[in-house]
Amino acid sequence: MSATEEPLNGVDLAAVAGLVDRIRTEPAAASTVWSAEVTWTGAFRSEAQVRGFGPLRSDEPVGLGGTDTAPNPVEQVLAALGNCLAVGYAANASVEGITIHDLRIKLEGNLDLRTFLGLAEANAGYEAIAVDVSIASDASEDQLARLHRRVVASSPVGHTLSRPVAVRIDLTSTAN
Amino acid sequence: MSATEEPLNGVDLAAVAGLVDRIRTEPAAASTVWSAEVTWTGAFRSEAQVRGFGPLRSDEPVGLGGTDTAPNPVEQVLAALGNCLAVGYAANASVEGITIHDLRIKLEGNLDLRTFLGLAEANAGYEAIAVDVSIASDASEDQLARLHRRVVASSPVGHTLSRPVAVRIDLTSTAN
Repeated sequence: MSATEEPLNGVDLAAVAGLVDRIRTEPAAASTVWSAEVTWTGAFRSEAQVRGFGPLRSDEPVGLGGTDTAPNPVEQVLAALGNCLAVGYAANASVEGITIHDLRIKLEGNLDLRTFLGLAEANAGYEAIAVDVSIASDASEDQLARLHRRVVASSPVGHTLSRPVAVRIDLTSTAN
Repeated sequence: MSATEEPLNGVDLAAVAGLVDRIRTEPAAASTVWSAEVTWTGAFRSEAQVRGFGPLRSDEPVGLGGTDTAPNPVEQVLAALGNCLAVGYAANASVEGITIHDLRIKLEGNLDLRTFLGLAEANAGYEAIAVDVSIASDASEDQLARLHRRVVASSPVGHTLSRPVAVRIDLTSTAN
């Protein structure tokens, strides 16, 4: 790649390689901490702040008691999974020398509302999530199948959802 | 509540009660399907579309090879969890007659980058997520402790993360 050439898929592989090198010599660099802070803004509306970015607004549909001004939290989970898979495809395709022309990811999740509504004491979350990936590229079917396996095997949000995470929720501060 | 009075915490409990009544007579109404569609927009950037709302933009920090224009997918997961807990507090507090004056939720997650970077074949996702909830309300400590237990026991995103979800990811359409 020359200095003026656009990198494959626009991906800065040198930055990723630099991180890989750093982790090889300093394994602790692989341990990362991510954070967000949510502020309730009334009714079922809230805003999540991540670093210095604009707030991620949340609401619920009217049928669920909300005012329907933004995607709801379970939709946000699907969005996060799709966004994560997009990074995985872009990263792994670039490593493999595959040019991606188009990449679209459709996600659907099934959720039983009874536990959330207090009608049951069971799983309040997604029972299943189905993802359909549609890609246009210069790769062969075999290359794409291998790419797909790599992406699925290394997706941070995919693993977060498919494996149990130790979630600790504490009420740390109260005031009247 | 009179017609002109603001409902407790702004929450439309009548809509929630209507849904509960409907599910009691028509259990299938509890089965919901949520969806999102993600479009890759180059490098590690993508946009998630949920219903008719503006896109949820995603990117990665520069150190991870991105262009740092938006929260990344694992940060979006924390945002979704915090937004979900905010709904849970608002809903359950309103049912209990508790007025919430202020509600803030701080979230942190620990993630080992090695699997995502191809340096290991292990858990690419969050190992642990810690959430600190800070609430100002007119409730007693006992009421708040009970409220907290109810929220944690019925959080759709909380359960989605703490339990394994059947995630199926298919490469359904390819073109060269």
